[in-house]
Amino acid sequence: MLTTYQGFQLKPSGIITLTTDFGESDYYVAMMKGVILSINPDATIIDVTHQIPAHSIKEGSLIIKSSYIYFTSGTVHIGVVDPGVGGKRRPIAILVDNHFFVGPDNGLFSNIIETQPHIQVIHLKEKRYWMHGISPTFHGRDIFAPVAAHISLGVNPFHMGEKIDNPTLLASPLLHKNNSDLVGEIIRVDNFGNLITNITREHLSPFLASKNLIITVGRLTLKKISTTYNDVPKGQPLALIGSSDVLEIAINMGRAIDYFGQDTVIGTKVLVSSPA
Amino acid sequence: MLTTYQGFQLKPSGIITLTTDFGESDYYVAMMKGVILSINPDATIIDVTHQIPAHSIKEGSLIIKSSYIYFTSGTVHIGVVDPGVGGKRRPIAILVDNHFFVGPDNGLFSNIIETQPHIQVIHLKEKRYWMHGISPTFHGRDIFAPVAAHISLGVNPFHMGEKIDNPTLLASPLLHKNNSDLVGEIIRVDNFGNLITNITREHLSPFLASKNLIITVGRLTLKKISTTYNDVPKGQPLALIGSSDVLEIAINMGRAIDYFGQDTVIGTKVLVSSPA
Amino acid sequence: MLTTYQGFQLKPSGIITLTTDFGESDYYVAMMKGVILSINPDATIIDVTHQIPAHSIKEGSLIIKSSYIYFTSGTVHIGVVDPGVGGKRRPIAILVDNHFFVGPDNGLFSNIIETQPHIQVIHLKEKRYWMHGISPTFHGRDIFAPVAAHISLGVNPFHMGEKIDNPTLLASPLLHKNNSDLVGEIIRVDNFGNLITNITREHLSPFLASKNLIITVGRLTLKKISTTYNDVPKGQPLALIGSSDVLEIAINMGRAIDYFGQDTVIGTKVLVSSPA
Repeated sequence: MLTTYQGFQLKPSGIITLTTDFGESDYYVAMMKGVILSINPDATIIDVTHQIPAHSIKEGSLIIKSSYIYFTSGTVHIGVVDPGVGGKRRPIAILVDNHFFVGPDNGLFSNIIETQPHIQVIHLKEKRYWMHGISPTFHGRDIFAPVAAHISLGVNPFHMGEKIDNPTLLASPLLHKNNSDLVGEIIRVDNFGNLITNITREHLSPFLASKNLIITVGRLTLKKISTTYNDVPKGQPLALIGSSDVLEIAINMGRAIDYFGQDTVIGTKVLVSSPA
Repeated sequence: MLTTYQGFQLKPSGIITLTTDFGESDYYVAMMKGVILSINPDATIIDVTHQIPAHSIKEGSLIIKSSYIYFTSGTVHIGVVDPGVGGKRRPIAILVDNHFFVGPDNGLFSNIIETQPHIQVIHLKEKRYWMHGISPTFHGRDIFAPVAAHISLGVNPFHMGEKIDNPTLLASPLLHKNNSDLVGEIIRVDNFGNLITNITREHLSPFLASKNLIITVGRLTLKKISTTYNDVPKGQPLALIGSSDVLEIAINMGRAIDYFGQDTVIGTKVLVSSPA
Repeated sequence: MLTTYQGFQLKPSGIITLTTDFGESDYYVAMMKGVILSINPDATIIDVTHQIPAHSIKEGSLIIKSSYIYFTSGTVHIGVVDPGVGGKRRPIAILVDNHFFVGPDNGLFSNIIETQPHIQVIHLKEKRYWMHGISPTFHGRDIFAPVAAHISLGVNPFHMGEKIDNPTLLASPLLHKNNSDLVGEIIRVDNFGNLITNITREHLSPFLASKNLIITVGRLTLKKISTTYNDVPKGQPLALIGSSDVLEIAINMGRAIDYFGQDTVIGTKVLVSSPA
């Protein structure tokens, strides 16, 4: 089934992804899945992660942006990191890059909005697509899950509310650039203890051919960008462009986070330079 | 397909939920899913949680009761918190409120049995619906998973054993009530550190219009029931009726559990009063 | 659809299982699922576990071997514990016991290869079954996920590379046997703190009828093999043949790991003897 949205056509894939800060010890995620399957019994529901640190909109935004592109077009991505639930923040749906996003308008979708040229944002208002008797503390279950399920069935999100052009954006992490220097920062630590930066392959391209490349992170200085973790001996630090196409700092067979210490690492500056 | 059960008709939804204390680091849950899919390849399997504290029948019972209602009728809910596996406790299936439940008869389904007027409980005995060569230590895989899969295909649980009328019940958490006072207790802590009580919206209804409401939990006194977490300033405690329709104690953008301390909080009395 | 592989016929089940050391806090698993569903939208994806300790090929191998048999024939099992990703180790697919396995050739499939008489191993080389633009650090997403998805659709793995006969094997855990003594070791600790050994029911069969059975693990001596955990009083240690058909050491309603201490237990010798 092909649905025509303002100006373009898109077939829902039937896939709905979930990214939340709910953890896996409660039943909150299961409630959302129950609601989705009650509306669309054939939906394919995929957990991205439920381990976003509680209330960490910034980290949620990074995860959603890095994961959605591996799903087929027409997929609906629900994000729920929602400390302001029940307050003034708007529930929204977004159409961008042939994907749908549903969640709170609190900056959770900043990273996608900022990097894509064509975005359409809908302030969700039509209660007939919501659960009856909305809880003021769980819009994930009562608004976002049913809205996503209806979109996955082909309902046009433009019929679910009003188009807006002022979605909430987060302040971006620092990224300076000039001819010979690039200053980014560490924005996330992954399960292997690798330090993920906001410096992309594209940012790095002027530096990749340099013979005098220097990467500085705190007390660590690295002089090349490796291709794989075992380009250096076991236990040694390295820099590489990781699987999400951003610069990361790692230790072969070890945890870079332990080298720097847990507290100081997020927000740490990363300097890439190529002195003449 | 519509199956006629004693006195009523019900169409299995094809959904099977799992609630266990198995954790996610072993392969025990995957074994159960493999067994289910071998019998019903089209089953939709949803994890409620596998992080019930080991052997905590009481917490498992609360989770199952709070989550099942968000699934469509005809869903089969497997619960496995089963410290007495292989001993004398009976394997059972339950039909209630248009849902099926399968698991050990050790009180795990108490919360559902106590709150519903019409319950039918079957002591599972027919081994042709079980795996061959039952392990005495893993009935989740060898009895409950295959029984649930067969029920999801439309097999009548009344053909799988004998009806019984004495299912095991847990002692309920304390809940006293008189004209001006209500005493319940904290029964669970969720992933956000919120303290979940056994006091329902219904219990609270006589108090909701009171101008002299006082809620007392340990050293904390609250004088109103908030609607959302951010009805109070960041870091301040509040009481609200949460998304499962029970009273909870929370801290806006914080963790109430840290306010009280991890050890003393489950079982702590919660007093709701409305002095003249 | 029945596909003919060299010498035998097999129908893919449409099920793909995942066993990795990725954890659940990142988006790496979700990326793999997105890739699989882009190729086979009808695949049923089952997580075995993503909590293999980072880089622990040995533990991954045990988990894969213990879990796969509960899935129906024609299932594809992806294993990714891959510290040498992007280096010289080969990407492989294996056909054995009517199941498919896909992952790195680093010993991760040792336990299956060693216990099965008929194995066929393919060194994956055909890039048309891979993602475009392979990341040197994430073959799970870029090679193993798409290859598994294509196999689940009926593509013959013999068309995806070259048959090899020297797959990498891990050194097996110690297992000595003579008439009256059997020496194995503890190879894993499960979520309940039970100590899982490499001594199978088959290894034990000469001892099961003995009246003088003695099992020794560190400072603990046990004189029988129990049937269920509650064959002994609460808090007491016991030995039993667990649900995976291997000897395990447990404590009724407790955690055996706490009895021995976390550091010394993996690799601890387990002596089974039957003195005359």
